[in-house]
Parts: sequence; C-alpha cells; structure tokens
Amino acid sequence: MNPFRFHNPTTLYYGRGQIEAHLAEEVTKYGRRVLLVYGGGSIKRFGLYDKVTRILREAGVTWWELPGVEPNPRLTTVRKGIALCRDHDIQLILAVGGGSVLDCAKGIAMGAKFDGDVWDIYLKKAKPTDALPLGTILTLAATGSEMNAGGVITNWETKEKIGASSPYTFPRFSFCDPENTYTVPRDQTVYGACDMLAHCFEHYFHEPAHAPLQDRLIESVIQTIIEYTPKALEHPDDYDARETLMYCSTMALNGMINMGMQGDWACHAIEHEISAFYDIPHGGGLAIVFPNWMDYVLDTDPARFAQLGERVFGIDRNGRPEAQVARETVDRVRAFYRSIGAPQRLADYNIGDEALERMAQQAVRFGPIGHFKKLEAADVLDILRRCL
Amino acid sequence: MNPFRFHNPTTLYYGRGQIEAHLAEEVTKYGRRVLLVYGGGSIKRFGLYDKVTRILREAGVTWWELPGVEPNPRLTTVRKGIALCRDHDIQLILAVGGGSVLDCAKGIAMGAKFDGDVWDIYLKKAKPTDALPLGTILTLAATGSEMNAGGVITNWETKEKIGASSPYTFPRFSFCDPENTYTVPRDQTVYGACDMLAHCFEHYFHEPAHAPLQDRLIESVIQTIIEYTPKALEHPDDYDARETLMYCSTMALNGMINMGMQGDWACHAIEHEISAFYDIPHGGGLAIVFPNWMDYVLDTDPARFAQLGERVFGIDRNGRPEAQVARETVDRVRAFYRSIGAPQRLADYNIGDEALERMAQQAVRFGPIGHFKKLEAADVLDILRRCL
Repeated sequence: MNPFRFHNPTTLYYGRGQIEAHLAEEVTKYGRRVLLVYGGGSIKRFGLYDKVTRILREAGVTWWELPGVEPNPRLTTVRKGIALCRDHDIQLILAVGGGSVLDCAKGIAMGAKFDGDVWDIYLKKAKPTDALPLGTILTLAATGSEMNAGGVITNWETKEKIGASSPYTFPRFSFCDPENTYTVPRDQTVYGACDMLAHCFEHYFHEPAHAPLQDRLIESVIQTIIEYTPKALEHPDDYDARETLMYCSTMALNGMINMGMQGDWACHAIEHEISAFYDIPHGGGLAIVFPNWMDYVLDTDPARFAQLGERVFGIDRNGRPEAQVARETVDRVRAFYRSIGAPQRLADYNIGDEALERMAQQAVRFGPIGHFKKLEAADVLDILRRCL
Repeated sequence: MNPFRFHNPTTLYYGRGQIEAHLAEEVTKYGRRVLLVYGGGSIKRFGLYDKVTRILREAGVTWWELPGVEPNPRLTTVRKGIALCRDHDIQLILAVGGGSVLDCAKGIAMGAKFDGDVWDIYLKKAKPTDALPLGTILTLAATGSEMNAGGVITNWETKEKIGASSPYTFPRFSFCDPENTYTVPRDQTVYGACDMLAHCFEHYFHEPAHAPLQDRLIESVIQTIIEYTPKALEHPDDYDARETLMYCSTMALNGMINMGMQGDWACHAIEHEISAFYDIPHGGGLAIVFPNWMDYVLDTDPARFAQLGERVFGIDRNGRPEAQVARETVDRVRAFYRSIGAPQRLADYNIGDEALERMAQQAVRFGPIGHFKKLEAADVLDILRRCL
C-alpha cells in the first residue's frame, strides 16, 4: 500500500430509533440556530420532516430552511444557502436527504466560512480553511456522502460538474435509519446501488500497490451489494435488505476499505461530464460508463479483473487463460447491471453523439484522468462512443 | 445488525517515512511537555528511541520518561506514570511500543485527569470524564490498541487483569511503520498474529444479528492473517508481509469491521484470568483457549462455523452435514495455530490445574461471560480443563 494518513471524525448512528434518541443531543452541541437543507419534498410526504422539526422544536432550536435542492445540486442553490447562513448567523447545517442534499450542504458549509466565491474552491483556485458544522440524516443509500468530506456541485451556466473536499466538511454526525429508505422508488434504488458499486470499482482498480486486505474488503462490499440489491428491489420494506444496502453505501466511500490505495476515478470524471451536459442521474451514468471503461482498459491488468471474477462472481479459473476469465468478469458485471434494470446505453437517456467531443475535452481539463490507466481526451472519446 | 453509534477519531499514519514527516507536527499540536512511555528497551537497541527523541528535541519538546512497561502492564507502572504527569504538568503522552505500552499509556492518560484511584475505573466503580491526549508509535502488530480506546491492566497484588475503555482514550494519532516490526522476535510475531486473529473470532461469533457485510469484512481479515503470518515468519524483513500483518492488527480492533455487532469476548475474559495468574503472553493464551472454546460451543450454531470454514478455509460443503463442516472448521483453526508454532496447551507454559477453579470463578465475577453462548463458572472450568 502507499503511505497514508487516515482520519474520519464523523459520528455515525445506524438503525431504528436513533434519530429520536440522539438527534437533539447532537444538534445542540453546535448551537440552536440551524439551517435545514432538503430536496424535493419527499421528506414531507413520508413524515420525516415532521419528525425532525418536532425534535428541533422540543430542543429549543430555531431553524431556517433551504428546500428544493436538485439532484445534481446546483451552484446557484449553494449560493442561496450561503446567504441564508450569513443572514441568520447559522451555527449548524442539518442536511436531510440523499447525496445531492448532503453535497449541497457541504458546499454551503465551506462557502459560509470562505471569504470569496465558493466556486473557486471547486475550481481548485482556493482552499477552504474552515467550514460551518454539518450534520446529516440520510434518506438514500448511494453516495456515501454521510461519512466523507467530499461533494459534487454543478455549475449549470458553464456546464461544469466538479467535486471538492476539505478536512472541514466531514459531517460531524450522520443518522442512517434504513426505514427512511423504504419509500425510495425503484429507479433511485437502482441508481444508488450503481453508485456504491462504482465507488468500489474505483477503489479496486488501483495503481499496482500491494494491498491484499483492502482488495478483500472491497470485494466484500461488492459481493454484498450484488447479493442485496435484488432483495431490496423485490421487497422495498425489507429492513435487513435496506439496512445492508445503506451500510454498503457508507462503507464504500468512507475511506475504510481503501486506505493506502490510489483508486482510478476516471469513470466518475467521465460521468460528471455526461450529467453536467444532460443532467442525468449520476448512478445511471456510472452504470453505462463502467462496463465500457472496463472493456477499454481490460488489457492493462487482466489479472486484477480475473481476481475480481474469481472471488466475487465465483468464476472457476480452472486452468483457463487469464484474459478469458477477465473477459468473463466484465460480462458478469454487465449482466448484473442488466439484471437490476440499470440503464445500459446513453441512448436510454436519448443522448446522441452531439457533445461527446466537448465532454471528452472537458473531462481532461485538469490533465489526464485515471490511475489504473491514464486516459487522454482521445481515450475518453473512445469510451464515450462505446457508451452510445 | 444492532443499532449502533460509531466514532473513531484517531488519525492514523501508515508506512515508511511518516514519523519523520509528521511526528513533530502532531506532537506539538498538544504542547511541548511530553511523557515518553516505552517498554523493555528494544526501541533503544533498534534505533527508534534515537529517531523519536531527535525529532522531539528538534521540535523544542521537553520530555520525561517512563521506561520498563511490562508485557501485561501493571497497575503499579500506571500509577508511576500518573505521578510523572502530575509532577511535570505533562500535555501529551507519547507511547512507543506494542499493545502493552499503549494500554499502560491509556491508563496513565485516564488516571492523570481522574480525581481518585485509577483502578476504580477498571473495576467499573468510576467513569472517567477526561484524559490526557495520547499519541502512539507502534512497534508490534497485535492488539489494535493504536486505533481504539481500550486497554488492559494487571493488578498483580490481587491477580486481576481487567480492561477499560472511554471516549477519551482513543489515541489522537498513531504512527505505524512496518519497518519498526522487522526485529520483532518469532514468538512475539506468532503471539501478535494469535491476538489479532482472536479479535476477529470474538467479533465473528456474535449474537444472531443480521450483518452480512460485517461477516465478510471479518472473514477478509482472518483470511489475510492466515495468508501473511507465515510470510512474515519466513522473511521477518519482508516489508509487504509486515505491513499487511500490521494493517490486519489495526483493522481487527478499530471497530470498523464489526459495527452493530455484539461479539462474544468470553475467550478474552478466560485468557485474562490465565495471564493474571501466570503472566503468560496474551496471544499465547488466546491460541490455547480459542480452539477449546470452539469445541465447547460448536453446537450452539454450527452454521456459523460452517460459513467460516467454507469462506475462509475453502472447505467444500458439497452436501455434507453442517455439523461435519463445522467440526472440520475447528480442526483447520487448530491446524493453523499449530502450523505457526503457537502454544497448544497450558502445559506448554507449565501450568497445571492448581488454580483453574479460582480462575473460573473470577472470570465470571461481573456475571456470565460470552454473547455467542453465555458461560457460567462451570462452563469456564470445563473449557479451562480442555486447555490443560
């Protein structure tokens, strides 16, 4: 493994009844002036808004609200939130929702304590030195944003979707109650599974670094996602299935399974271009990009693909050439995506080849992408064409 | 899984060169008056003492020393450390050594900020409300103490060996450089492997709780220990092998692989009695107790043993009765201990049956032990007799 520093200070609460038991205590550690950030209103339909605001009220907390955070949350919304924080001397941001809401809240937390344009942080022109405290209540198993410091924001004017991270944007606390995901629609459940699976793949296809335990930890998460996604789809209110998927999503991107590894992350960069141009669901985009990226990079290290195939999909190697096992592994990945009804081509979102070249150029604007295999604009374009 | 709260604030540094690059910066966050705690002097023989004190000196740090911490660290030594902290207004405890040194330092950290007898904390008569900051430099892959809040202390006068833990005793930082374990003797390497393996087993044999990802994470660590211990024994200066074992030891007991699970922990309680009476190495004691405990509890849930056997040891179940596969699993565990030269019977330490009854009584003094199967004094005695 590479030398590493690991620090994840988030306090994580999992399971039924934890919000009722501990939310007031966690919130009031930081103050009594809260900005409540949420999305399209499903938290109102399903009672979570009422539960949370009742707890805040009983704890003597005053809150302001930023509703309507979009999937692929927008810079304009982040800016609205920053203004609210400044106008009302907010002490804690409480994000209630999925990864988009949490990512938006991280942007607000950084921006509220940053003396300049928050977008400069995403453009890597500036570094945050502080952030407002942030707590979260998760309603979607997908991004892992509940236990990491990163977040992705879209600048719709410039068609740029960029991530940023800082030591100050780890949620101070996160509440993960699987029951809050019972009402997640089928397609969102699928996208969530594709997203967490993509995080695992990004880690797994790392630079050649010796990390045998990390490999197995990642394989464990992949296997569990593959086993439990169909269960959650079949029985949306199966507590164990929802809990297991939620827990996979947290573990897939909280840094615990990939210490000392430099993951690849090209597919995320490519997908960010697709959804920056077409505003499609991130998980859906990843499901399209990943198998095609795998086809493209397979020859870089077939042994890694073969290891994945043998350990996760139980492919019998039995003296077969490594390249053949590797090939079969990618077929199995594709088959899994198909089996859960994930999108398979850009055409599924009515996306043609109009913008592929601009997307490929923009994907490499900070330099070549990917660590397992370095990709230039021409490589990205080739992969995008395979996605059509 | 059970509802849980997880919080592990330790900053972990792994790999070559990290001490040189980051120790001064971490230490001076807490002050410039340090208590340096270490063991029998191997850190002097192998140059680590010189390296660390040079870094402290160059950072303008003044330090006092508590050398000579014993394996199975003693209450008397903890008390000595507490007095030093008070006399010299210590701001940070820096523990350099293996689990014993770290556990001793945790006792000192709690005691220095506790207005009463520190042993009362271990006896659960008092709860700490604060502790001095603690940093560690690890020299032995074994206990996981570098990234958890627990520590075990022996009161030699009363023949009691008891663990304690608090939210304040997580090391603020820990440096794990595998090169610092190259000179660990063969028997200590074996004991370390037995200890980390025991932590995994304690987690794995949990109450019936649905935790499929955690099961796989634990299996991953077990598999990696089994694969890499022989490599480290064969080539003590194999960086990758030492690093992998060190990393397994950290992951086995930092809470990351067993969230929401109540492990068993009866074997630890039993072993603590053995080493409280006979001062034998903890890892050696665990290697003796575990297979005999497994024999004793096998019928409680053969499916769990069979799952371990199939996934970790690759036992082909092939229509065989579960009980038979479970039986074979325990045989394979025993065979692994034998293969690395771990002790197999109390007789290996010249321990007879003189004190077994007292040990069994004392093991259950806070109530029955074990969660996978609850053990009363008679059960413990039976297991101890099997260990003879």
